[in-house]
Amino acid sequence: MAACVRDREFTSLLSVEFLTQLGLHKRRYVMGIDTFLSGNRSVLLAYDQGLEHGPTDLNQVNYDPAFIMKLADEGRFNGIIFQKGIAEKYYTGKVPLILKVNGKTQIPKGEPIARQNCSVNRAAELGAKAVGYTIYLGSEHESAMLEEFGRIQEEAHAQNLAAIAWIYPRGAAIKNDTAPEVVAYAARAGLEAGADAVKIKYTGDVETFRWAVKCAGKTKVFMSGGPKAASEIDFLKQVRGALDAGATGLAVGRNVWQSSDPMKMALTLRRLIIEDKSVEDAIKD
Amino acid sequence: MAACVRDREFTSLLSVEFLTQLGLHKRRYVMGIDTFLSGNRSVLLAYDQGLEHGPTDLNQVNYDPAFIMKLADEGRFNGIIFQKGIAEKYYTGKVPLILKVNGKTQIPKGEPIARQNCSVNRAAELGAKAVGYTIYLGSEHESAMLEEFGRIQEEAHAQNLAAIAWIYPRGAAIKNDTAPEVVAYAARAGLEAGADAVKIKYTGDVETFRWAVKCAGKTKVFMSGGPKAASEIDFLKQVRGALDAGATGLAVGRNVWQSSDPMKMALTLRRLIIEDKSVEDAIKD
Amino acid sequence: MAACVRDREFTSLLSVEFLTQLGLHKRRYVMGIDTFLSGNRSVLLAYDQGLEHGPTDLNQVNYDPAFIMKLADEGRFNGIIFQKGIAEKYYTGKVPLILKVNGKTQIPKGEPIARQNCSVNRAAELGAKAVGYTIYLGSEHESAMLEEFGRIQEEAHAQNLAAIAWIYPRGAAIKNDTAPEVVAYAARAGLEAGADAVKIKYTGDVETFRWAVKCAGKTKVFMSGGPKAASEIDFLKQVRGALDAGATGLAVGRNVWQSSDPMKMALTLRRLIIEDKSVEDAIKD
Amino acid sequence: MAACVRDREFTSLLSVEFLTQLGLHKRRYVMGIDTFLSGNRSVLLAYDQGLEHGPTDLNQVNYDPAFIMKLADEGRFNGIIFQKGIAEKYYTGKVPLILKVNGKTQIPKGEPIARQNCSVNRAAELGAKAVGYTIYLGSEHESAMLEEFGRIQEEAHAQNLAAIAWIYPRGAAIKNDTAPEVVAYAARAGLEAGADAVKIKYTGDVETFRWAVKCAGKTKVFMSGGPKAASEIDFLKQVRGALDAGATGLAVGRNVWQSSDPMKMALTLRRLIIEDKSVEDAIKD
Amino acid sequence: MAACVRDREFTSLLSVEFLTQLGLHKRRYVMGIDTFLSGNRSVLLAYDQGLEHGPTDLNQVNYDPAFIMKLADEGRFNGIIFQKGIAEKYYTGKVPLILKVNGKTQIPKGEPIARQNCSVNRAAELGAKAVGYTIYLGSEHESAMLEEFGRIQEEAHAQNLAAIAWIYPRGAAIKNDTAPEVVAYAARAGLEAGADAVKIKYTGDVETFRWAVKCAGKTKVFMSGGPKAASEIDFLKQVRGALDAGATGLAVGRNVWQSSDPMKMALTLRRLIIEDKSVEDAIKD
Repeated sequence: MAACVRDREFTSLLSVEFLTQLGLHKRRYVMGIDTFLSGNRSVLLAYDQGLEHGPTDLNQVNYDPAFIMKLADEGRFNGIIFQKGIAEKYYTGKVPLILKVNGKTQIPKGEPIARQNCSVNRAAELGAKAVGYTIYLGSEHESAMLEEFGRIQEEAHAQNLAAIAWIYPRGAAIKNDTAPEVVAYAARAGLEAGADAVKIKYTGDVETFRWAVKCAGKTKVFMSGGPKAASEIDFLKQVRGALDAGATGLAVGRNVWQSSDPMKMALTLRRLIIEDKSVEDAIKD
Repeated sequence: MAACVRDREFTSLLSVEFLTQLGLHKRRYVMGIDTFLSGNRSVLLAYDQGLEHGPTDLNQVNYDPAFIMKLADEGRFNGIIFQKGIAEKYYTGKVPLILKVNGKTQIPKGEPIARQNCSVNRAAELGAKAVGYTIYLGSEHESAMLEEFGRIQEEAHAQNLAAIAWIYPRGAAIKNDTAPEVVAYAARAGLEAGADAVKIKYTGDVETFRWAVKCAGKTKVFMSGGPKAASEIDFLKQVRGALDAGATGLAVGRNVWQSSDPMKMALTLRRLIIEDKSVEDAIKD
Repeated sequence: MAACVRDREFTSLLSVEFLTQLGLHKRRYVMGIDTFLSGNRSVLLAYDQGLEHGPTDLNQVNYDPAFIMKLADEGRFNGIIFQKGIAEKYYTGKVPLILKVNGKTQIPKGEPIARQNCSVNRAAELGAKAVGYTIYLGSEHESAMLEEFGRIQEEAHAQNLAAIAWIYPRGAAIKNDTAPEVVAYAARAGLEAGADAVKIKYTGDVETFRWAVKCAGKTKVFMSGGPKAASEIDFLKQVRGALDAGATGLAVGRNVWQSSDPMKMALTLRRLIIEDKSVEDAIKD
Repeated sequence: MAACVRDREFTSLLSVEFLTQLGLHKRRYVMGIDTFLSGNRSVLLAYDQGLEHGPTDLNQVNYDPAFIMKLADEGRFNGIIFQKGIAEKYYTGKVPLILKVNGKTQIPKGEPIARQNCSVNRAAELGAKAVGYTIYLGSEHESAMLEEFGRIQEEAHAQNLAAIAWIYPRGAAIKNDTAPEVVAYAARAGLEAGADAVKIKYTGDVETFRWAVKCAGKTKVFMSGGPKAASEIDFLKQVRGALDAGATGLAVGRNVWQSSDPMKMALTLRRLIIEDKSVEDAIKD
Repeated sequence: MAACVRDREFTSLLSVEFLTQLGLHKRRYVMGIDTFLSGNRSVLLAYDQGLEHGPTDLNQVNYDPAFIMKLADEGRFNGIIFQKGIAEKYYTGKVPLILKVNGKTQIPKGEPIARQNCSVNRAAELGAKAVGYTIYLGSEHESAMLEEFGRIQEEAHAQNLAAIAWIYPRGAAIKNDTAPEVVAYAARAGLEAGADAVKIKYTGDVETFRWAVKCAGKTKVFMSGGPKAASEIDFLKQVRGALDAGATGLAVGRNVWQSSDPMKMALTLRRLIIEDKSVEDAIKD
């Protein structure tokens, strides 16, 4: 029975033509990643910065995961991104969960690597609908992370969880990680590696980001929210640019919960992304 | 039956809201870490310095684990911390056991790493209620330890043992391991990694340590006793500061068993921590 | 039953004399690699350059795996080479699939290594008839790749998939990777390692490539298409040379799908390789 | 039945108080290490120098493991220490066997490491009553050896074999490996790591070695025989010193089988160690 | 039943005295290595040079494994040494097979290592009666190879295959790999590691090689044929020297199949080694 479910879901990852050929074309195409969509758009709330950057990112309100959990729920985010420890102690089940299964601090110098720190089984037990994994493309340790993501992706799909890749070009060989050709490479690597979605940085303009989105093919593209922008308008324009370039949405943390009014920012982003409004309309609403 | 117990205990690690949603809210919240508490406070006796620092920490009385075991019992400590070898040969079962499952000597130079040297199964067979694991945050090998702790934590929870992380920022990138932002980072990393409790150093003042405790969220914070203080008063004031900042308690070794009167020191700490007295009252009692 | 099939197929890998001695000589010699042959020749379409070199290899048409899949089908290629992610989302089942199970970007400097990023089981589930694996012969990490290919080859044969080795001499010790002795070494290493076929670079002339083909023995030799040639004639002459030297065929990507008329190029190659025509006849047809 | 035996034996490793608490106090305390004792003393014959130092340690008589096996038997040694290969081909079963399960040559420079080269299962099949493992404490690879010993110790105890640790401080950080604080550290590390016995070097005097023995606690201490001493009297005085300091005995190789009369030396050591005679009485008998 | 066979064969590896004690003395002493003997002598044909040195060792005749297989059969060799790939495609079953289960090219510089590239199970499926494994004694990676050989030897014996160690002292610490003390060390390491036979280089004279053979004890010694000798007489004298020193035989490749008349050389070696003739008689026959 379990095997049956597994088979049905697994085939849903295959192309429609191949499914047709196998006589399976009538099955609905259901994938873990769909859980995180409103229509074909999505806004995810990321909250693993405490591990990645340390508490310097946090203040007296947003340090509390319970505040973030509530914000995700009331701000109607399509997903919440936690490390295992926070999910275990604070996840309420009210917003679909993406469990980040690797992570590192920003302290060690040298070529970056982050190893799996949570099993896919544990993620599933916690109620996650997707796992997230960072690949530092271009690092000397790139190969170890491509290998590990490959295994995790297969384990995730076997349990009907989506596999989302944070693809961050890094290491001595990377001079500018938002250069158009670097971002497009990240997007493409995610497609080839089997990611259901990638989280990548914005290139700075619609034209070059559109190429990155094309290179990602059927892999959905989430723009990475990044550090707090100089102004909200600037940030919203970037998001609008990513959407116009074909992105599915945004995975955002600091630009929401470091905002002076996080809930307002959440609703603005929802109008911009889910309701597909212009920056001007999204703000004034 | 075993599976049933496992499920019940496992769910106890989840947030109350999520349990409620799953219809499991009536179950008592019982966790391994509670075993080590008197009310909401705790004093743990640490005795793995023979491996970590060598016998230079020991004298003609405290070199003997049987003396320490007796001290832990009669001094009414909430837990005793041993490496596997000492637990096997000296543990009497009279005080809850935290088995330290990694360790290293202080001899090798370079970026620190300590690998698992005792299985979680073995810890459970020895009667442990928790496992302890050191993560040298910031070491070049940080990723290997985050990965290993991630696996150990899952194995421990599957057997209803708590997982306690000693989080010690170290390596070339760490200039001052008691700097407030470093200690807060250690606390937060423990929460995100899924530790039930962390053992971290004191920052030196209540204000900054309170921030560290906040960053640890629902992960309980134990102040690390550290090397023998210049005076007992100074040490007790630090502990009082940690408690005022919200710490659950203290994991202490040398400041007790290197004391001229270990039992008196044990009882003083108990009054200070468990009975929540002032330093002055704790001493004079 | 499955075990029976496995045994029958497995023995097909053994030499005819040994099969005869074991009383199994009447069994037909069927091997995964035969799936990719038209007679004794083959043209494979490679499309993992997005990961290996990045989207700089791609343009506004060929970036799309669906275009490539169609090209492979209509151009009557004997096989299509994809990474896992592209196979999952675009493979239609209309052309035999070779799943590439390792890969790396061109970003990291230093001695090259690419680790397995797709299980053999997953390749089989996707309908692959062969797995492909790159060995960077001469790299400091050579031994890790020979070891990994050894295991993958056994797993592949156990599921009746062929194992094809991309053998690329690389690293500080390699001065010229198309030198005749280097290419012959690559071919021989593929035979000794148990590859059903190798993909190697052309040496530049028939004579020296014939020696490489001889050194590969019963392991089939595919010339590696390499970067877009200066002129199509030059490229076709190289392919003709490889065939005259005894190669089974060509694994080609950029010289087809970067061509101004990919379908024409595909058909030209088919006439050259499968119909064994001269360069002149292949072009004019 | 096997499980029953296992349980009984396993509990024998626990402290008497804990056994009492568990209601198991009537069980006899039987441990693998007892197999190697005459009363509370022991002389072990070590013969793994062929691997550790090479045949330069051997001569035309003692190169032959059959000679050593006979010497161990007729010299009434309490145990014989072999690597797997010698045990398989020469062990007669007449003297309890300690199988050394790691080893290295003295050729490679740099930080020392020796990995497990014989499984615990194989040691048990060969009739061993204990496994031996060297930990190069202080080596950059210390952590790998503490981890491996931890696993081996658990496997050994599960089969009722004793686990003996050769603890040799080494590497760039060690200036003098017989300094009292270094030897005491080695002894203590053995206790904490769960060794049933440690083999350590002599410090040079009774006083400082007594401290090392104390630091080893319930872990039995074997003095390491070391290279052939300048005179037999000097060597015997060292052994007498170790015994007076509380050592259980001696693990000796070269000072016996490089002696002009190995059997006489064996019997002298037996009188000194097992019969607890003075150096003078042991010699003259 | 299989378990029974396994037990019977396993005990055959133990010493006669220990077997007697266990009541198993009536069992015939049958070991995989005996398969390769004519009386107590043996000549093995090695053909893994294509991987180890590259096709520079090969010519227009001997590049073909089928030629070598025929030569091994008609030259009445006691065994043939192949890598997995050649065994799979060319082995006819007419000569006992030794499957070499690791290997490397001569390209990478630095401390040598070769990892396992064929499972013991696969070797057994291919009909091998022994596995061969190279240990680069003295390499920085020595420990990894001693560990791997230890595991392979146990797996091989469990399937009644012999385990033969190529022991080649290498790396920065080795100045002269045919120095008598170096060769004797290699021989001894093979015995201690549990090899049924070792393949080592000749020291240059009978006296010093006799010591190496003695140090190998019951482990059989094969002289390594090495590169093509200046003259055949010189080579045959070396082989005669090795035999006079007590060697079991020769593992030879290039001095046979690079010879102007390989079959004649094969028969000469057979007379010299198996029929134990002098160099003069072996040649003239």
